[in-house]
Amino acid sequence: MRRISVFGATGSIGESTFDLLMRQGGPSAYRTVALTGGRNTRRLAEQARALRAEIAVTAHDDCLPDLRAALSGTGIETAAGAGALIEAADRPADWIMSGIVGAAGLAPGFRALRHGTTLALANKESLVTAGPLLMAEAARHGARILPVDSEHSAIFQSLLGDDLSAVETVTITASGGAFRDWPLERLAGATVAEASSHPNWAMGQRITIDSASMFNKALEVIETREYFGFAPDQIRVLIHPQSLVHALVTFRDGGMMGHLGMPDMRHAIGYALNWPERVHLPVARLDLASIGTLTFQEPDPVRYPALELARQVMVTRGHAGAAFNAAKESALDAFIEGRIGFTAMAGVVAETLTRLSAGTGLGNPVTSLDNVLDMDAEARRVAEGIMAQRKV
Amino acid sequence: MRRISVFGATGSIGESTFDLLMRQGGPSAYRTVALTGGRNTRRLAEQARALRAEIAVTAHDDCLPDLRAALSGTGIETAAGAGALIEAADRPADWIMSGIVGAAGLAPGFRALRHGTTLALANKESLVTAGPLLMAEAARHGARILPVDSEHSAIFQSLLGDDLSAVETVTITASGGAFRDWPLERLAGATVAEASSHPNWAMGQRITIDSASMFNKALEVIETREYFGFAPDQIRVLIHPQSLVHALVTFRDGGMMGHLGMPDMRHAIGYALNWPERVHLPVARLDLASIGTLTFQEPDPVRYPALELARQVMVTRGHAGAAFNAAKESALDAFIEGRIGFTAMAGVVAETLTRLSAGTGLGNPVTSLDNVLDMDAEARRVAEGIMAQRKV
Repeated sequence: MRRISVFGATGSIGESTFDLLMRQGGPSAYRTVALTGGRNTRRLAEQARALRAEIAVTAHDDCLPDLRAALSGTGIETAAGAGALIEAADRPADWIMSGIVGAAGLAPGFRALRHGTTLALANKESLVTAGPLLMAEAARHGARILPVDSEHSAIFQSLLGDDLSAVETVTITASGGAFRDWPLERLAGATVAEASSHPNWAMGQRITIDSASMFNKALEVIETREYFGFAPDQIRVLIHPQSLVHALVTFRDGGMMGHLGMPDMRHAIGYALNWPERVHLPVARLDLASIGTLTFQEPDPVRYPALELARQVMVTRGHAGAAFNAAKESALDAFIEGRIGFTAMAGVVAETLTRLSAGTGLGNPVTSLDNVLDMDAEARRVAEGIMAQRKV
Repeated sequence: MRRISVFGATGSIGESTFDLLMRQGGPSAYRTVALTGGRNTRRLAEQARALRAEIAVTAHDDCLPDLRAALSGTGIETAAGAGALIEAADRPADWIMSGIVGAAGLAPGFRALRHGTTLALANKESLVTAGPLLMAEAARHGARILPVDSEHSAIFQSLLGDDLSAVETVTITASGGAFRDWPLERLAGATVAEASSHPNWAMGQRITIDSASMFNKALEVIETREYFGFAPDQIRVLIHPQSLVHALVTFRDGGMMGHLGMPDMRHAIGYALNWPERVHLPVARLDLASIGTLTFQEPDPVRYPALELARQVMVTRGHAGAAFNAAKESALDAFIEGRIGFTAMAGVVAETLTRLSAGTGLGNPVTSLDNVLDMDAEARRVAEGIMAQRKV
């Protein structure tokens, strides 16, 4: 019986993973090692009961009493805190979902690789901030990383049966977000509420705003570079408002393979869960005749400056991914809190990268997760400083 | 050095094959065994010289003197006639292009399989009229058949790395042909000239008219059934006027893999020539942003009755493919000669199938190529009889 763990079990990715695990037999098909979550201990306990997990872990020490109470009498172990997350990742499992959002997701994923596990990677920060380190760690331990994002899963599937060396370019698609068709001059005045509505995907607020600014696509471009090893100029972004073609790979023979499907994260989660098999998944089938039309257009670099920043990060590598991500998070915080306007975000990130690259070492290789965390803190300080100056 | 032969070397498929062979090194990269052609002996001789073939064969006895003269002093053998084509197929080669159009292409392809060759199959009649026999012959001798048609190559590529058992449906696309947007009531009066203009592909007159009537797509549907072994209700046709998405495979996980590219037969020929590698091909890259829009719609069964006839053939199998193909050829002859109208073709084919299935054995397995040739002649007789009755 396959041993599985889910990190970030009560988030959006985690819930979809749980749903698929239960549909595919739940505790009679999988031996669940660890489930981890945040403050929603009640839901975490429900999942742990349903999957008969060995251990349930909350990231927050103060949530431990609630989790314990919810699982009392079940025989399921409980634990809390960052150390407990690492300890849970140290429990050998055959397949682990890395679904924790943010920098907190890095350490457990890295630790799990030591056991040669298959890591289904939904945490974006891992590849963006520490891609070379992560890939090297996986290679060292014979672990496999499977991408859990529609775009990267689509590239992965388009490459099946072909050599990476036969790839000419890869194209990942972007809906264009909430402001795709807005007049440029209105963007500076866009509100948080306006930026928080996505045309196709139901997601959290932060990632939806990152779709409107295309910072989310910028992160995916960097992940594509790090996971597959393509050169920056091999990676393209195409606006595709319907979000039905997720990615396309153009081979040197001129043929283009693509993955299509309804916008539903369970495609990518289910593919990673069952790889290399495909099993029936409870997702709607794409009916192109009823859709009728698919459209594509080049992204406007003025509307979406995040893409050029991604290119710079791909060229610099090293600590640039961590700096980019942290500056983006700071700018996003500031936009949500009303401290800066929508179009100011990209400027803050660009200026942060400029200031950090004036110091030494932005392009030096990341050699430990501490490097990443240090740069994360440093970039946030720099970004906040820039925004404080601008307000004056 | 790989030994190759090209059957139908001076036709459209053959010329593209020759072009790719020459670009990929010509006689310094391939040992050319046999090249065969029809009446264009001058061109056949040019190709044979350029590739330093062992033998050049014309299908027509009366063309032999010309071929001999054109190759005198080169040391290249010459031969003519159906028997010589078989003899040429008996010369062992590692890769053979089966590019002869029509029933004449069946026997050489079958014979080549005996030598465990890789057969690049462009001849449509082979799978339509004798699919099970052909696939069994390939399996018996450990030979491999690679499809050379945009749609089937697209399906083949979409299946890379996956099991056939994971396939839910396959969709092959159709441009809709010259009359896609005509009012239905005008179809009966469509002229040969009007039916001979294809929106996207530059092809011969017969196949272009078969695109307008969708008899060509009907043949491809039957080929898909026979080559891949899908059930009839797994195979769908979608109108896609731009002819850029060639086929799509929907897997049981709801994901859809597709192959896209500019309409250029060298995609499929080059893929089959270099499989399992992909090499650089001199085809234009597909630029979706400049294309802008891809559209899809269900084919109207009233406009395209050939698709329902294909379904019947797939269900009946046995000799039905040969009967269908022959009746279609007769009806097409009659349309081109002005004996019947455009919309009468499907009725002639349907009526031929009905009359033949009233006799015994239409669904009996084809056990030899003679079966195919007998049914071909019989169906043409029946079809001509139907058309003669209608004229009275």
